Amino acid sequence: MTEPLNIAIAGLGTVGAGTVRLLVDQAALLATRSRREIRVTSVSARDRGRNRGIDISNYQWFDDAAQMAAEAEADVVVELIGGSDGVARAVCDAAIAAGRHVVTANKALLAEAGTEIARAAEGAGVSLGYEAAVAGGIPVIKALREGLAGNRIERLHGILNGTCNYILTAMRDTGREFDDVLAEAQELGYAEVDPAFDVDGVDTAHKLAILTSVAFGTEVDFKSVHIEGIRNIATADIEYAEELGYRIKLLGIAERNEHGIHQRVHPAMVSTAAPIAAVEGVFNAVVADGDFVGTTVFEGRGAGAGPTASAVVSDIVDIACGRLTPAFGVPASALAKPEAAPMESHRGMYYVRLMVLDQPGVFADVAAALRDHEISIEAAIQRTRSEAEAVPVVLTTHDVQESAMQGALDEIGGFDAVQEPPHMIRIEKF
Amino acid sequence: MTEPLNIAIAGLGTVGAGTVRLLVDQAALLATRSRREIRVTSVSARDRGRNRGIDISNYQWFDDAAQMAAEAEADVVVELIGGSDGVARAVCDAAIAAGRHVVTANKALLAEAGTEIARAAEGAGVSLGYEAAVAGGIPVIKALREGLAGNRIERLHGILNGTCNYILTAMRDTGREFDDVLAEAQELGYAEVDPAFDVDGVDTAHKLAILTSVAFGTEVDFKSVHIEGIRNIATADIEYAEELGYRIKLLGIAERNEHGIHQRVHPAMVSTAAPIAAVEGVFNAVVADGDFVGTTVFEGRGAGAGPTASAVVSDIVDIACGRLTPAFGVPASALAKPEAAPMESHRGMYYVRLMVLDQPGVFADVAAALRDHEISIEAAIQRTRSEAEAVPVVLTTHDVQESAMQGALDEIGGFDAVQEPPHMIRIEKF
Repeated sequence: MTEPLNIAIAGLGTVGAGTVRLLVDQAALLATRSRREIRVTSVSARDRGRNRGIDISNYQWFDDAAQMAAEAEADVVVELIGGSDGVARAVCDAAIAAGRHVVTANKALLAEAGTEIARAAEGAGVSLGYEAAVAGGIPVIKALREGLAGNRIERLHGILNGTCNYILTAMRDTGREFDDVLAEAQELGYAEVDPAFDVDGVDTAHKLAILTSVAFGTEVDFKSVHIEGIRNIATADIEYAEELGYRIKLLGIAERNEHGIHQRVHPAMVSTAAPIAAVEGVFNAVVADGDFVGTTVFEGRGAGAGPTASAVVSDIVDIACGRLTPAFGVPASALAKPEAAPMESHRGMYYVRLMVLDQPGVFADVAAALRDHEISIEAAIQRTRSEAEAVPVVLTTHDVQESAMQGALDEIGGFDAVQEPPHMIRIEKF
Repeated sequence: MTEPLNIAIAGLGTVGAGTVRLLVDQAALLATRSRREIRVTSVSARDRGRNRGIDISNYQWFDDAAQMAAEAEADVVVELIGGSDGVARAVCDAAIAAGRHVVTANKALLAEAGTEIARAAEGAGVSLGYEAAVAGGIPVIKALREGLAGNRIERLHGILNGTCNYILTAMRDTGREFDDVLAEAQELGYAEVDPAFDVDGVDTAHKLAILTSVAFGTEVDFKSVHIEGIRNIATADIEYAEELGYRIKLLGIAERNEHGIHQRVHPAMVSTAAPIAAVEGVFNAVVADGDFVGTTVFEGRGAGAGPTASAVVSDIVDIACGRLTPAFGVPASALAKPEAAPMESHRGMYYVRLMVLDQPGVFADVAAALRDHEISIEAAIQRTRSEAEAVPVVLTTHDVQESAMQGALDEIGGFDAVQEPPHMIRIEKF
């Protein structure tokens, strides 16, 4: 057996404490699998005295995480503080500067500065592990980067945020509206007090930008991700989706088209027969289409102490075993500059729900607007009738261009008889 | 960039030719990902002149694959001949003896002699890669061995044979019986002329034995796998399963119980809500339950040139990058001797279909036999009535011991009014 691998952990929240617990509980197993001892030597957090259910008395304590990263007796610095700047970034930079491997669960940081940090890590000859940053316990970074290394990935899509998936699943199961379910999720601890990062799609976009880079060998390009969240999804849409054979999921999608790499996060209707439609509650899933392997699906828990610690430790074991891989599969210098395809270049099917006053000629006006934008209707549902209030008219289209659809919706939204901004959800074929 | 990695390929059937094609088509991509050139130098097959749609004129030809393994200009020998003894074994032994890495898709060989070959490879300081031996293109060996390295795996189950899954899916979709669907699958090339290995569960058992070793860190123990195939599944059972909320799948299951490691292959009823129930046709899936990560699911194509070549090449890229791992996750000398739990120790729910003459007292006799074996009935269905011929009586039980169930079925099978051997299918809760 070689020398022990020494670990310094910055951040002792749920994931940090879970990581310490895993490393202690499974020490014997990990030593057999790594052929060397893996031991925590140092920790840093905001509050030394807080009860975390773990014993940290044998570890060297640092008030300053960046100082720990630079000075601790450590081969690997594990950054579990979070946030795209400030301390987390300082910890990574200090660790790399000191020639230590970095393992992090920080998707925001990698989405914002992944290429730059990967370049620094490679320059210093150290590893940058971030399995825990995407899809929790699912070893999807390893699967894409190593397991599917023989493939050109053509498209990937995934459910990458457990909070949104929990909310959408609960809305469908209970028939309750978004605000109501969100409030409950917050009480249960499934959603943050400030839910914006999750429900507005930003967290999904962070993870998608990382996956895109691994899958396509391009520099991380978070700023090009088109982002829409789930606040506008109504139970009415969920019910119409079911009726049409679809389920609504917040997806991150990356694909190569003739304009470049297209990254988008938005609610989508997927066939109930698609594997991803069956991914419910707090589970995450990633589906990758490779040119040789075909479609592969990876599913598991997207968050929580255990799954995230599992991912962090898989990176540590790789380092312990000397299995080193450039962060995004190829050396940072070999990552291509991404050519970002604009959202307007998207082509696909659409679902539209209009709330209209039930007057003669409304439907004809809508149909004319769609025709003028060269959009052909696949199906239309109007069931309810009411002279007093707006009633829903639901349409699905054949494949059309996003730009055409947006033009039509702008026009239709301006009609006097149309009482709410049109509710549009893209339909995805997988 | 370091020296090129030289590859010798033994066996140029569908998978061998697919592997050559992948290595040629993706040469530039692989060179970027491996940071060195990967090139085929030598090939061996039975018939040199056969048209395989690939150009082998630039490779050194060997009539004798074992000689190639010993003498070719090769860092890695890829064994794609198949079979658990004879040439395939000789190729692996010769390659290892000559200090070359081995990559193989040969599940039969690894199930029979995996521990021994792993020990030899480690002794010679070379890698034994076999991602392609289990679940085709799904990188499940890597996922279990590295991605979930922080976990103690508690149970795993999978659909590991695409032929059986195709047949069961087609039986359900078309309402046709086993023999009929098998004949069609043979015509379509989805089933072998001699289908026994597939439909009798042997192929699934080979793969399960390998997965078990990786998951539990035990020596490969194929001979302890309890094996039942799908020949006795009738469309009647598939229909009753649907009615009861289940789907019938041929599963490989490995779990730790108080008697040791329990490995079994048999048709099982799984809830239609379980992820594995949605895995249809030629797709494979593996579900692993880890103590920290929870449940993870890996799904993809289980066979075919492209997916299998993808898996073979992922092992080659690992070798090219110097990412070496003991074959079963821990050194062969550290693999535990498996304590095999007998099938009689299994406890679970059961489905039983009896074909009985519709006489007074039959049901009372059956119920008494079950009671005498301390088996309690969860549900019973008898719908059809006929004075002329046997009618089905369907039962499901609560959790009972396999040995009790077998005792009861022996007794019930001996009743005069019971016209066929009882049809029993285990129900699995996941």
